[in-house]
Amino acid sequence: MPSVALSNESESQASEPLSQQYRQVRSQTMALVAPLTAEDMLLQSMPDASPTKWHLAHTTWFFETFLLQPHLSGYQPFDKAYQYLFNSYYDTVGERHPRPQRGLLSRPALTEVIAYREHVDAAMLQLLSEPAPDIAAAVTIGLHHEMQHQELIQTDIKHALSLNSYAQPKASPDRPDAANTATHDEPEFVCFAGGLVEVGTNAENGFAYDCEQPRHKVFVPEFSLCERLVTNAEWLEFIEDDGYKRPEFWLSDGWATVQEEHWRAPLYWHREGRQWFTRTQSQRLPVDPNAPVCHISYYEADAFARWRGCRLPTEFEWEHAASKLPLEGNFLESGVALPQSAQGAEGSLKQMFGDAWEWTQSPFLPYPGFTPPEGALSEYNGKFMANQWVLRGGSCATAKQQMRVSYRNFFYAHQRWQFSSLRLAK
Amino acid sequence: MPSVALSNESESQASEPLSQQYRQVRSQTMALVAPLTAEDMLLQSMPDASPTKWHLAHTTWFFETFLLQPHLSGYQPFDKAYQYLFNSYYDTVGERHPRPQRGLLSRPALTEVIAYREHVDAAMLQLLSEPAPDIAAAVTIGLHHEMQHQELIQTDIKHALSLNSYAQPKASPDRPDAANTATHDEPEFVCFAGGLVEVGTNAENGFAYDCEQPRHKVFVPEFSLCERLVTNAEWLEFIEDDGYKRPEFWLSDGWATVQEEHWRAPLYWHREGRQWFTRTQSQRLPVDPNAPVCHISYYEADAFARWRGCRLPTEFEWEHAASKLPLEGNFLESGVALPQSAQGAEGSLKQMFGDAWEWTQSPFLPYPGFTPPEGALSEYNGKFMANQWVLRGGSCATAKQQMRVSYRNFFYAHQRWQFSSLRLAK
Amino acid sequence: MPSVALSNESESQASEPLSQQYRQVRSQTMALVAPLTAEDMLLQSMPDASPTKWHLAHTTWFFETFLLQPHLSGYQPFDKAYQYLFNSYYDTVGERHPRPQRGLLSRPALTEVIAYREHVDAAMLQLLSEPAPDIAAAVTIGLHHEMQHQELIQTDIKHALSLNSYAQPKASPDRPDAANTATHDEPEFVCFAGGLVEVGTNAENGFAYDCEQPRHKVFVPEFSLCERLVTNAEWLEFIEDDGYKRPEFWLSDGWATVQEEHWRAPLYWHREGRQWFTRTQSQRLPVDPNAPVCHISYYEADAFARWRGCRLPTEFEWEHAASKLPLEGNFLESGVALPQSAQGAEGSLKQMFGDAWEWTQSPFLPYPGFTPPEGALSEYNGKFMANQWVLRGGSCATAKQQMRVSYRNFFYAHQRWQFSSLRLAK
Amino acid sequence: MPSVALSNESESQASEPLSQQYRQVRSQTMALVAPLTAEDMLLQSMPDASPTKWHLAHTTWFFETFLLQPHLSGYQPFDKAYQYLFNSYYDTVGERHPRPQRGLLSRPALTEVIAYREHVDAAMLQLLSEPAPDIAAAVTIGLHHEMQHQELIQTDIKHALSLNSYAQPKASPDRPDAANTATHDEPEFVCFAGGLVEVGTNAENGFAYDCEQPRHKVFVPEFSLCERLVTNAEWLEFIEDDGYKRPEFWLSDGWATVQEEHWRAPLYWHREGRQWFTRTQSQRLPVDPNAPVCHISYYEADAFARWRGCRLPTEFEWEHAASKLPLEGNFLESGVALPQSAQGAEGSLKQMFGDAWEWTQSPFLPYPGFTPPEGALSEYNGKFMANQWVLRGGSCATAKQQMRVSYRNFFYAHQRWQFSSLRLAK
Repeated sequence: MPSVALSNESESQASEPLSQQYRQVRSQTMALVAPLTAEDMLLQSMPDASPTKWHLAHTTWFFETFLLQPHLSGYQPFDKAYQYLFNSYYDTVGERHPRPQRGLLSRPALTEVIAYREHVDAAMLQLLSEPAPDIAAAVTIGLHHEMQHQELIQTDIKHALSLNSYAQPKASPDRPDAANTATHDEPEFVCFAGGLVEVGTNAENGFAYDCEQPRHKVFVPEFSLCERLVTNAEWLEFIEDDGYKRPEFWLSDGWATVQEEHWRAPLYWHREGRQWFTRTQSQRLPVDPNAPVCHISYYEADAFARWRGCRLPTEFEWEHAASKLPLEGNFLESGVALPQSAQGAEGSLKQMFGDAWEWTQSPFLPYPGFTPPEGALSEYNGKFMANQWVLRGGSCATAKQQMRVSYRNFFYAHQRWQFSSLRLAK
Repeated sequence: MPSVALSNESESQASEPLSQQYRQVRSQTMALVAPLTAEDMLLQSMPDASPTKWHLAHTTWFFETFLLQPHLSGYQPFDKAYQYLFNSYYDTVGERHPRPQRGLLSRPALTEVIAYREHVDAAMLQLLSEPAPDIAAAVTIGLHHEMQHQELIQTDIKHALSLNSYAQPKASPDRPDAANTATHDEPEFVCFAGGLVEVGTNAENGFAYDCEQPRHKVFVPEFSLCERLVTNAEWLEFIEDDGYKRPEFWLSDGWATVQEEHWRAPLYWHREGRQWFTRTQSQRLPVDPNAPVCHISYYEADAFARWRGCRLPTEFEWEHAASKLPLEGNFLESGVALPQSAQGAEGSLKQMFGDAWEWTQSPFLPYPGFTPPEGALSEYNGKFMANQWVLRGGSCATAKQQMRVSYRNFFYAHQRWQFSSLRLAK
Repeated sequence: MPSVALSNESESQASEPLSQQYRQVRSQTMALVAPLTAEDMLLQSMPDASPTKWHLAHTTWFFETFLLQPHLSGYQPFDKAYQYLFNSYYDTVGERHPRPQRGLLSRPALTEVIAYREHVDAAMLQLLSEPAPDIAAAVTIGLHHEMQHQELIQTDIKHALSLNSYAQPKASPDRPDAANTATHDEPEFVCFAGGLVEVGTNAENGFAYDCEQPRHKVFVPEFSLCERLVTNAEWLEFIEDDGYKRPEFWLSDGWATVQEEHWRAPLYWHREGRQWFTRTQSQRLPVDPNAPVCHISYYEADAFARWRGCRLPTEFEWEHAASKLPLEGNFLESGVALPQSAQGAEGSLKQMFGDAWEWTQSPFLPYPGFTPPEGALSEYNGKFMANQWVLRGGSCATAKQQMRVSYRNFFYAHQRWQFSSLRLAK
Repeated sequence: MPSVALSNESESQASEPLSQQYRQVRSQTMALVAPLTAEDMLLQSMPDASPTKWHLAHTTWFFETFLLQPHLSGYQPFDKAYQYLFNSYYDTVGERHPRPQRGLLSRPALTEVIAYREHVDAAMLQLLSEPAPDIAAAVTIGLHHEMQHQELIQTDIKHALSLNSYAQPKASPDRPDAANTATHDEPEFVCFAGGLVEVGTNAENGFAYDCEQPRHKVFVPEFSLCERLVTNAEWLEFIEDDGYKRPEFWLSDGWATVQEEHWRAPLYWHREGRQWFTRTQSQRLPVDPNAPVCHISYYEADAFARWRGCRLPTEFEWEHAASKLPLEGNFLESGVALPQSAQGAEGSLKQMFGDAWEWTQSPFLPYPGFTPPEGALSEYNGKFMANQWVLRGGSCATAKQQMRVSYRNFFYAHQRWQFSSLRLAK
């Protein structure tokens, strides 16, 4: 998304009035979709992904359903049919359009969905014009929900456009003689003493999802983390050492997936002559050997770690290590569409935030004492607490204000279309 | 497509200059898509169907590939990538975009595809400006090819929009007390003596596809045909007599399909209270009891005939019976989006042309001496001569000039999204 | 089945008392399974195939259901549960055990199924001891039904054992230097004048299935048939000419199947060094270049014919050509488990009967005036008259007395586990 | 397996000579299969399950491969082909027969597999006749491996026979008027203080698998466990409260599975009139309301717990609570084929061992510092550490000597054919 200039307002946002935050997040979404046509925004390339237009409507539906209808007296829904069309998975709210058929919603048109956004925005700003502390929590969830969808908008359309050979210009003249050679040295590992540590949050100083709560103790043995993410150059070594062909590195389910899907490299990689290429949403680029590997599954991350004689960190190790670091990194606001090579002092932890999500070896489970909210929002996180794995730290497609040290993202082990990478642990 | 006013020029078309025929067919295609948005035209609801935009481009590709590139000196292709994108199934021409992913071609945009049509139209009219008898045959194939896709444009978008609850307004106020009651009497059967008859054509008096050739003899025993198509009222009797639940009426493959697909009525039918509804591309309408049943599979047609103690006609019986009739009926040009009730003298064959395709009990096979053309067009019909069944007579979505008494349409026995119906035989 | 010595009584059988025919057919079945263990007889390797034990029971169920229960007063069923377990597809008779789970019927044990056969045999012989002309037709159907299952017993167990590497001894020492080289010359074609000919039968001189009836006229243009079946040597040429890799030879559905199934040679063929091997039920053997190719699908037969500039015969051409020939050939009784090279005068039709079934280009359809019998046996053939193709002539696994010039076998175009071959036509 | 009288020797076994342990475990396996025929022992009803005969051979292959071939000089393999046929999943050892086709191994015959067992047993006893401490660990693994397969033998054949209506006699006369009414009161919960506790083992006092090691600290907050397993009567309340129809109780993946699989009750349950029935391997029995529910998936266990306002325990809570209890319960040796109602003092933990495995909310993951053994046995547990859940405590099909407080069993969340149940936690 190189042409998108995103506001820097977000940094100071938490202290801003809610109405200003609302305006900023909502307009950031529209800035993201600016390079796309109405036809692009209808694409759904797999059931896991959704059309851009659907994301635009669903995030709006969220405010209409959970804020305007219960709290703004006299509010008239934009179109009653939208309740069915743009519900994602809230069984409590009612029936919904089948997920794999979201790409068939040519109607309502994009222009109508944009009018829907404007209708709901006007009503929301009216609702927010008078202080009402009892709705602030729901509004904030709505904004964080929208930021989550901002990332999905980017990863979903990237996937859809990747399947159209016509939408893949090369960024620059090929240099087929150029191998993807790295300039980095061997990375260092940073040691941590471990012990009985506290993780999670009670959300006393700001917003956090239910699944990050409550703050609680876990016992973490001594461990060490690699100072940076695994690079593309290291991944090329794994490929060249037949990493994708040797079952001894792989989990059993992972090895079965490698065979079925014919994986031989990260998603979006392909080779021409001696050179490997990857892609952004809009362009095909040579693989940068110094940048972090990206678009890999949990299975690949785990196999790579075993090949290197290491392992993935737990989410608690990661959180403990990250808890003292400043929340800085290559986020959405930087306008860079791929993870970048690590910058910073040698021997210090780098890239803990931003650039790419880090697979952990922790399944997504409830924390002790986890309580979902009452009502429909009880379905937000809790019902996904099986068979998925926690990723930490955010990516170059994540809005910075969405990130927290306690933030838990989660995906299935075979999924690769997110900006997912890994950091080695011992 | 009630709002589409189509030219009546087609009736006298065969004697017109080729360039005028070209203009007429090409503009008829654009008239058909006028009610659709760019988003609608991207929809692909199943691998059998294609997006409208793809049809617009593919029919244009046909002229570019088989006429302009070999025959117009100095012709510059509009975009070389289109050769890959818009090839349908011509292995001889080269690789192609995967059929089930045609709905992912948000790019090129609709506006570019329309520019492509205009580019090719200009070049074609240049090519056609000078008499060149050696290309007339290929141009005529291209026009008939485009008319075939005109019908597919209608059936494919009808299917796609049917899966979007938001695109299904009711045509008129409901009358839930109104059952779908017929006013017609029992139909009569018309007898034919049979014998050694000639079928097919040598295309001496105009265009015909390879699969209709050569004219040849077949022996047809005495037979009789019902004077009209089976009506919706008769189909409702079949439903009410548990026709979809009694295996004794069904072919083995058909019965398996009924179970798997949970068929209980023709495609697009659903019930509210006591009343059944169906739909056009744009509207939901009560089922007209006097109109022919439509959107049924071969399996359903065959089971209905067995339930009635009859059978389906062979394609040779149909052709023999039709060969003396005037080529008139409810075709695309009438602007009516569904088959209409039979009109005409009692005891005479009606609806042999237009309204709805008639399933025959004849598999689509080569005629004795069948020879496909040389080159890529050898793939036009011949390679589909297995597992499909012949339908005859055209439908309300067929351009009239496309129809001939020897015309052979063909689909798989389970397919229902065409305007397919049946006529009883004994 | 080289070790099975089958009775030669069958040749004169039609004139024998029905009870003697009954004994002969039933004991022939038991002779066929003699080399198999109880464990072998439980195998079901795909839904198309059935366990040997199930065949033994189902053929017995046929006599119990259609003869003993309606016609032998005081008959006590062996076990009422068998009616459910061993019904194949007769909806009229009632519910049945799911076809794909026939291999899970470890109980009743083989010994019980054999006792069932003996129980039914005793009762049948009692029934047949007194002349009762009204049951003769049903008994004869039962015997022909059992002979059909004799062939399936052979093809089904051959398939199942082929998936067990432990059950595939080599017949003789390998000669990896020996290519599969043919000694035959180019075959000749035999011409036929065609015209209005009669095919089918009215079963006046013996048994015939409903689908072979009635005798009727068809018009057959002039044609010629190859004097023998296509040989393995010819098939090797097709393979070496990239026949399996060139779409121009293939029907569209056939080409899709080749890709999905990764077909590169007939079923059961595999290559070691320069030599190709095939297998019988019990042994692995070098491919005999002079013997007919076998275990090919309709798609392969059709593609081979197109590669050779020929076509497959229609079933009417075949029947017309065969109608004057003596009904002789390499049948089950010869005890040879594979088709053998053609023997006979040059330029005369050979291998029309026995050796291997010949795919025709005729779909399996009702003859004009086809009437299925009343009752449950109406399901015998009629409901399969869609999507299958007629094969003619019988194979080395067919009992000779089962064969007639009007006999129509039928399978789906993708099926290969029968002894299926082809003869070229022009 | 009510008729199987198993030895009580196992109780004192750990102190016995290895050769005596070997004899006892191997003969216990043969006692288990005594009621089965050779045909039964070939059944494979789903890819998750294996034929009994395969289990008999595979456990023998384990000793041959890991003990006899490397350690007994002069050992002659029984049949070299068995290495391929009876390898389960050891990539390091080599290729293997495809898992879903184990049911096609009619050859080698059961008698040959029994001869294989005897051949290996003789060699093993020779190997064990001289003290060789360096092989004791591998022998012990082999014995525990065989005991694991003893349980699978029972669950796999139970599943296979359940699909054959002919193999399901009722145990006793029906009482269709008898509802499955419980006599138990509300159970009590037992509280535990939690804190920093130790779990796992260093295997200092006996055998343990790699995945149970090393002993390590975890922090466990205060918790309480229900004194007994959930009963069938309680499960009936869940069914009657529409537990299987209300998405609010279910994990998202679980709800999808309920829809796809049409689950309405535990595996093997079906209803006649007002009464529910379940089954053992050999008989159909009324559901005992006081006995623990069994054959449920993780999804069902989790949904039930949520319906009751409780949750599943973690494996660490379970292990901490169980660590002081005597290792007693309804194990395989009791000869009872289903879990039994809880016996013991009110308010004390019951059924912690035996009766039925207890699903925990803990995914199967490596303990901190987990190290798989060198060589092929590194594949024993480690590669399954993804997407599976830990079950604890053993079942009525588990050999008692196989059980330990640190024992971790693991299955996928959708699997139901094990003896799996649940205990509520808070």
